[in-house]
Amino acid sequence: MKDKKLKIIPLGGLGEVGKNMTVYEYQNQILIVDAGMMFPDNDMIGIDYIIPDFDYVVQRADQVVGIIITHGHEDHTGAIGHLMEHVNAPIYATPLTNGLIKNKLSRRNFPKEAKLINVHAGETVQIGPFKVDFFHVCHSVPDGVGLGIETPAGLVVHTGDYKFDHTPVDGQPTDYGKLAELASRGVLALLADSTNAERKGWTPSERVIDAAFDHVFQQAKGRIIIATFASLISRMQQVLDTAIRYNRKVCFTGLSMVENARIARELGYLQYDESQVVSLDVALSMPASKVVLLVTGSQGEPTSILGRLANGTNRLFSIQEGDTVVLSSHPIPGNEEAVYRAINRLMEKGAEVVYTDIEAVHVSGHASQEEIKLLLHLVRPRYLIPIHGETRMLRQHKRLAMEIGMDERQIALVENGRVIELKHGELKLGERIPGGYVFVDGTGVGDVDRSTMRDRELLSQDGVVLINLMLDKNNGAYKDLEIISRGFISQDESVDFFDDLRHRIHNLTQSPSKNMQKEIQALATSFINEETKRRPFIFVSISKV
Amino acid sequence: MKDKKLKIIPLGGLGEVGKNMTVYEYQNQILIVDAGMMFPDNDMIGIDYIIPDFDYVVQRADQVVGIIITHGHEDHTGAIGHLMEHVNAPIYATPLTNGLIKNKLSRRNFPKEAKLINVHAGETVQIGPFKVDFFHVCHSVPDGVGLGIETPAGLVVHTGDYKFDHTPVDGQPTDYGKLAELASRGVLALLADSTNAERKGWTPSERVIDAAFDHVFQQAKGRIIIATFASLISRMQQVLDTAIRYNRKVCFTGLSMVENARIARELGYLQYDESQVVSLDVALSMPASKVVLLVTGSQGEPTSILGRLANGTNRLFSIQEGDTVVLSSHPIPGNEEAVYRAINRLMEKGAEVVYTDIEAVHVSGHASQEEIKLLLHLVRPRYLIPIHGETRMLRQHKRLAMEIGMDERQIALVENGRVIELKHGELKLGERIPGGYVFVDGTGVGDVDRSTMRDRELLSQDGVVLINLMLDKNNGAYKDLEIISRGFISQDESVDFFDDLRHRIHNLTQSPSKNMQKEIQALATSFINEETKRRPFIFVSISKV
Repeated sequence: MKDKKLKIIPLGGLGEVGKNMTVYEYQNQILIVDAGMMFPDNDMIGIDYIIPDFDYVVQRADQVVGIIITHGHEDHTGAIGHLMEHVNAPIYATPLTNGLIKNKLSRRNFPKEAKLINVHAGETVQIGPFKVDFFHVCHSVPDGVGLGIETPAGLVVHTGDYKFDHTPVDGQPTDYGKLAELASRGVLALLADSTNAERKGWTPSERVIDAAFDHVFQQAKGRIIIATFASLISRMQQVLDTAIRYNRKVCFTGLSMVENARIARELGYLQYDESQVVSLDVALSMPASKVVLLVTGSQGEPTSILGRLANGTNRLFSIQEGDTVVLSSHPIPGNEEAVYRAINRLMEKGAEVVYTDIEAVHVSGHASQEEIKLLLHLVRPRYLIPIHGETRMLRQHKRLAMEIGMDERQIALVENGRVIELKHGELKLGERIPGGYVFVDGTGVGDVDRSTMRDRELLSQDGVVLINLMLDKNNGAYKDLEIISRGFISQDESVDFFDDLRHRIHNLTQSPSKNMQKEIQALATSFINEETKRRPFIFVSISKV
Repeated sequence: MKDKKLKIIPLGGLGEVGKNMTVYEYQNQILIVDAGMMFPDNDMIGIDYIIPDFDYVVQRADQVVGIIITHGHEDHTGAIGHLMEHVNAPIYATPLTNGLIKNKLSRRNFPKEAKLINVHAGETVQIGPFKVDFFHVCHSVPDGVGLGIETPAGLVVHTGDYKFDHTPVDGQPTDYGKLAELASRGVLALLADSTNAERKGWTPSERVIDAAFDHVFQQAKGRIIIATFASLISRMQQVLDTAIRYNRKVCFTGLSMVENARIARELGYLQYDESQVVSLDVALSMPASKVVLLVTGSQGEPTSILGRLANGTNRLFSIQEGDTVVLSSHPIPGNEEAVYRAINRLMEKGAEVVYTDIEAVHVSGHASQEEIKLLLHLVRPRYLIPIHGETRMLRQHKRLAMEIGMDERQIALVENGRVIELKHGELKLGERIPGGYVFVDGTGVGDVDRSTMRDRELLSQDGVVLINLMLDKNNGAYKDLEIISRGFISQDESVDFFDDLRHRIHNLTQSPSKNMQKEIQALATSFINEETKRRPFIFVSISKV
């Protein structure tokens, strides 16, 4: 008789456990939950994005029976294209999630033969040995689901990103009944979102934003420009609803806004009358007090519409006196500088700017401490495996669980790549497989490593100096010396500085030498370091001409 | 008769107006208030620090009658050395500020002939045409002062950094009486700190930290390691006081901690008995439950003690199971990633970590909204000039002033370098002088410009590729081709990649060419971009050998 053993492996995320992918494996059959990407930290220089190291499933590609995507955010969908290069299995997701996936990934390398299967919250689907209950959860994108995953080794609940919003914009609260029903069957393990485990209380409902929007719309005299995530469909609905009350037309601006709005409306997740929405051309020709523009760039990204408006480089329209700009978002850690810089620049260009520090124009999509405790009481798992969080958040999650009476031995704090084994109702930690992340830079996946990045950092610190000595090809006598630098010193200062260095190298070449290249390298290194205390990369080449 | 005109020019700060320096000028006599530095933003690559562009005072060096430093923080003292290279004028500061200046700058380029004059809060000093009242303000370093600056053009109040702490650790509240007395004389203009103008309510007293420390000391079983700023003398006092109650010895760890504690104690700003303090050697040999280590690195700086403890690279001691680490500070915007990474790593090494998100182990040193309004009511200025803040904070400061009844025309929102003129009791905005900042990199002051930094950023994105083609010096035939790269691709991947490129360049050299260098450059650029979507700097040189 085969072992009734379920393996669970969290993967991906920059130190956030199981942020982008979780692998469920039962008797050599694999179910993948989510396939997302992350944006790099500030010190991961030149990297476009990061995906989980999913070599484990690549090695077992033919064992994968299905891929479930819990909701339509990039950190849960962004690596699907990369995964599908290796794994050919059906993708199960709700209609909106599938719509967003199709649209987002059709622009990248999404394989045409990929099989997307629509599942609705409340349905149960058998995927290989996994009997999966999809249940509705509130989050900052509609149609998100959590999972009850039944296997002969036991029942596991996987929340995905969730909050308990009693007054969600789409009217769909998290499915308390299903959570209770799962609990009644006896939940062996709960994998739950830890993002806000440090945050006291209860995350405010999306509804509180209505009041803030009302206030903004009452005050605004000119155009209203609202920046938010293109995936925040419920925020779009709130803007549309408020715009009707204040007799303004809404313009979705930018490709991702327009397309996501279209998809969400087609699938019934966004309700509005065509007459409420105008094109950018029309919006720009209307009286300022009659329009609302919905734009991307709430993280201050310099290439986004909001970023370009702040920098004065947007082609189609610019900030004008009397505009009210609303940043309906919160800076993601690491983006604070960019966001606050954009706010300052927008103000300096004449806009009123409303942002979360001064008005409640955004709320989090993740459960805070009281919600996390409620979830634990509802689900009553034998084991808790905190996921979706850095070490500090997982620790807090554990602390919360212990406050409500769980025992330390019931809580497994694991790192990415740790194999969790569930057998005979017991949890054991198994081996550690590679669970890091892979850098994607341009078209290269994994061809930039830590050492390349260290070089990039060094290059960025003090730049590069190239020294090309030209000697007479006949007698080896000094003929000319070319010094080029990038990122080392300003053009104005470089003339005198390099004249001095050139003079010293010229002197050096007057004496015979066994290894002229090495001697020039040493001379330049010490001269530059003494004069400037900098250490650029120095390359010396010698040509005979 | 000469004009009774007072000019005020705010300088310095990264978009924070008057953050590091303010110039007061009356009839060609100049008083400088503060001379500080800033740390660079994340995208100011390779820059050590930033100082105000004070060329205006350098051009008028012989007109400077004095320099006042309001308190001993780097953003108010860090550019003194640079200023003294050009300006020889006495420095007026309180004893602790002078002590910290002397110590901090003796390690740098502090000129020996500099004249430091001790002034006590409550004193009035005539400096040229400026009659200056020094009055005590609470802040996160003791012995801070605000200034009442009386000139024939009128009375100006300059707060410096302040808060209204009713229960400060040193027992010295901000001097309400003096503020009222200045108001009774009629204040023409108030220059006031805007740092926390976005923050509702009243900044908590330093005293609230006592309760948090009590809680931490009660819970801690092993060593307690507290990271804070070396200038936070009052925090040191709180640690010493709590340590007595819990029968632990305190060890100041690291040069700046040790020296600042010594100076503060010598000058009477820190009270403790020698027997309470132990050296690091002794501390490390004592039972873990009997010691507290005070260390630097509360901003996660990788070279600080806390940063090295987090990375496991500290020489003298390491984190051990049972340690409790307290980050008694708040991440400065832009440092969040570094701070949270340090917290995670400390936890992973076995420490309990306490930080402001989970316990009140730090409070701000700046006035919040209710304090800002109180100041305005106390001082009742004709004009308000918000300083010490980015545009968004100055705007909020203005909004607060208008809420309590000031008229828009009474409030001057200015940028750095804007000359504010006060004459006949009226405020006018004058010309704009250069008011930016100067990059300091190594020993270079101002020799790195925006274009150099752009190159650094490009270098850091995709690295550099050097191609050295060697041709036969006799017949010009292809002999060899060397390709070196840094920060472009990992070593493993580069072999195949550059073999391919080498092959293509070799083919190219088989056909005659007018400008081989340009052709190789073009070939390499397009090959690299097509294959990798990256754009490294590419340098081509051709040698005849």
